Amino acid sequence: MAGRRRALYSSEDLAPLINPGSIAVIGASDRPGSLGARAMANLADFRGRIFPVSQHLTEINGLPCYRSILDVPERVDCAVLAIPSQAIEVVVQDCADAGVGSCVIFASGYAEVGSEEGIAAQERLQSIALRGGMLLAGPNTAGLGNLGTGAHCGFAEFPHGYAQRNGTIALVSQSGAVGLGLSQAAMRGTSISHVLTSGNSVDVDVADYLNALADDPVVDGVALVFEGLDSAARLEQAAMAMARAGKPIAVTKLGSSPLGAAAACHHTASVTGSPDDWTALFRRCGMVEVQDMSRLVETAVFLAKFRAFRKAAAVPAVSILSSSGGLGILAADAADRHGVPTPQPGKTTVHRLQDILPPFGSPRNPCDATANATSNPESILRCTEALLTDDQFDALVLLWGKAWRSPCFEGISELATNHGKPVCLVWMSQWSDGPGSTDVEKLPYVSLFRSLDSCMSAIRAWGAPHSFDTGG
Amino acid sequence: MAGRRRALYSSEDLAPLINPGSIAVIGASDRPGSLGARAMANLADFRGRIFPVSQHLTEINGLPCYRSILDVPERVDCAVLAIPSQAIEVVVQDCADAGVGSCVIFASGYAEVGSEEGIAAQERLQSIALRGGMLLAGPNTAGLGNLGTGAHCGFAEFPHGYAQRNGTIALVSQSGAVGLGLSQAAMRGTSISHVLTSGNSVDVDVADYLNALADDPVVDGVALVFEGLDSAARLEQAAMAMARAGKPIAVTKLGSSPLGAAAACHHTASVTGSPDDWTALFRRCGMVEVQDMSRLVETAVFLAKFRAFRKAAAVPAVSILSSSGGLGILAADAADRHGVPTPQPGKTTVHRLQDILPPFGSPRNPCDATANATSNPESILRCTEALLTDDQFDALVLLWGKAWRSPCFEGISELATNHGKPVCLVWMSQWSDGPGSTDVEKLPYVSLFRSLDSCMSAIRAWGAPHSFDTGG
Repeated sequence: MAGRRRALYSSEDLAPLINPGSIAVIGASDRPGSLGARAMANLADFRGRIFPVSQHLTEINGLPCYRSILDVPERVDCAVLAIPSQAIEVVVQDCADAGVGSCVIFASGYAEVGSEEGIAAQERLQSIALRGGMLLAGPNTAGLGNLGTGAHCGFAEFPHGYAQRNGTIALVSQSGAVGLGLSQAAMRGTSISHVLTSGNSVDVDVADYLNALADDPVVDGVALVFEGLDSAARLEQAAMAMARAGKPIAVTKLGSSPLGAAAACHHTASVTGSPDDWTALFRRCGMVEVQDMSRLVETAVFLAKFRAFRKAAAVPAVSILSSSGGLGILAADAADRHGVPTPQPGKTTVHRLQDILPPFGSPRNPCDATANATSNPESILRCTEALLTDDQFDALVLLWGKAWRSPCFEGISELATNHGKPVCLVWMSQWSDGPGSTDVEKLPYVSLFRSLDSCMSAIRAWGAPHSFDTGG
Repeated sequence: MAGRRRALYSSEDLAPLINPGSIAVIGASDRPGSLGARAMANLADFRGRIFPVSQHLTEINGLPCYRSILDVPERVDCAVLAIPSQAIEVVVQDCADAGVGSCVIFASGYAEVGSEEGIAAQERLQSIALRGGMLLAGPNTAGLGNLGTGAHCGFAEFPHGYAQRNGTIALVSQSGAVGLGLSQAAMRGTSISHVLTSGNSVDVDVADYLNALADDPVVDGVALVFEGLDSAARLEQAAMAMARAGKPIAVTKLGSSPLGAAAACHHTASVTGSPDDWTALFRRCGMVEVQDMSRLVETAVFLAKFRAFRKAAAVPAVSILSSSGGLGILAADAADRHGVPTPQPGKTTVHRLQDILPPFGSPRNPCDATANATSNPESILRCTEALLTDDQFDALVLLWGKAWRSPCFEGISELATNHGKPVCLVWMSQWSDGPGSTDVEKLPYVSLFRSLDSCMSAIRAWGAPHSFDTGG
């Protein structure tokens, strides 16, 4: 594909798509559940100008409708095409003629079907866009959302979870459904700035998105999911731009199995390539590979929250703090599985801990503050400070035995900031979104994990990103 | 320890402890937050007789208080000792003299401290109980709960999640905090019949609990967590009793690392033993080992829900159904990682699927029903039926892209029952407890997983429990 020979799009190039000031919805509708109605509803928070285009309506949500994009009185940045596939080609040409900056095409039935007609139709869309100097997202995409500006150009409902704080991540996914599922992390407190999906990626692909996000000041890191790319070199270049900006990428690569690769070809017409080649590329660029996608978002958030604390490549040593001996043992076992060192605290630290703990507590590593700590949050804070002060430890793993909102949360985040060391709170309760979980997600310098293995593999990757691959 | 030479307790032997008709709370209190008040509050749903014993109060919650267990007018089945450790020994002797059936001792400071005094004090408790023919739970235990009868003899708040339905599990844990964290699965829909913790296990240990649960008709399976046991042979015997009853056990063994083993010694005075020896024992007994404890409950529930469908040892082949190509690819990759075969459907099945799916869907494995399926739950049901009918597949993995309550849930559970094949719904949304999740947990013949790796490893273990170990 000719488009692939071009350089990566910069954030400026992509602005009409990921940061538009004006959006036209072609096929705008008030019929509940229709693509056109969903695309309109998704712009409810958009602060820019909206131009509905409809053959049937004269007004929608108080906005005048236009019969064609050619009738819209200004050059719009982005046109969302919520129309049947038969009409797409003509409308894309209209958009090019109208000087539209970018088009988002939901329709499927193109190269992913594998038919000659589908491939030819997709190539025609590409040519029209290329000649008109217009960006294309899709076809076969769920669209994209800039959750900070409300420019949500898609039919899927991405939740609006963006908050201006440390640890904000952008989601970049070839698959729309995957992007949607991941974006629901916002419902449990994750700050998400963008959800960018690319579908068949005839023009804009995930590498372009990454490259543009490297420049975006609200983005601290990216969770990336993709099936395949024509050009690995372009991804490498974009990942390097992210690395130079000090922004981590956690990545799940789809299609590592023969059956998965075959399915990827059908899904977005992607050639998935050799898993080993991709893994090698990820390591070269300091990307953290996460096979089990259920761990991708928490890994990305952790890397994003603590990117400023990252040291020269080394394996970080952790101290473990819990209100239960059993939980501490589990954490020690998990650290061992993932090669994370757990040295014993120094003498001074032991003495400090002994002053805080009851006689049947343990001032060692793992540190058992006993069940008393749950009724005495101040003791958790004091133990946290003692352990963060000890030079032997690069990070603290704090185990949370049950769903519980503690008054010590803010204080722990402050201690982590002051000491420049990550604190990971591991949620050992099976009440996944129980009281306290959202509060912890929202802390700027505490990371929440729902599995010890997820936590320890992320810590390992944080220390030595070039030589580690988080396991399944 | 002499007690270990005895045979396992039967369900009849343990009845005074895990199914008591009368409970005395020694140290009953109305002071909020005190052990005695929490122990009383935990009996709010108990249908049997309650006898508060207090030095200070004459009445509590409308019940008359007794000055001593010796004043209680009947032989009680279970005495809960919510008193300081200094008073324990005298009261345990009183209980034995009063003919009490079982004692639950929360107090710590015994063998787990490692001191000669602690060990000697624990041995004295053991002797008193042994001479009096009285069961002991603890010391250093959070207690235990029979959630079906409301006999909750503990200070920890176990949620009341028991419901009479297929897939009910019991939680058995040496560590109280671990048992508490796991029990909160009830808050997201898991049916839990018992939470049994054993602490220092001076008399009753996790092997006894298992042996008794083998006979309990409400229990379909067990999630087990322990650090160590004096006698592996007793655990093997109990696990075999469970196996004969057709009841699966999912187990997380604590203390597999050197540091974890050292911490276990401090925690409950346990000798953890060699991890390889334990793994070999688990395999011999058909127990399914789960290293990442965050996956333990869902694995146990899956094994419990589908224990009746279990076939002779073989690797089950699965079909994968999703409303998104991307999710299907992820599932195919995960199946590959865990050695779960994913054959292609037969010709008849392909034709049936083609009749249901839109032209851009995929009637293969993984089957992509496209985003259309989310607005057409009937098509999910029809695809489910087509795939379950195909003899090539032993189970169906259904991917759920976002938090969503579907009208097809009940129908899917019925199809699974009719075909005698497991359906696993994998929650691909990061909104962990979002709409739909609890509904799925409550279905008798659909299992919910929050990670593809967790799902595929459980399916693999379900088919060939004797030769598989679910990974971290």
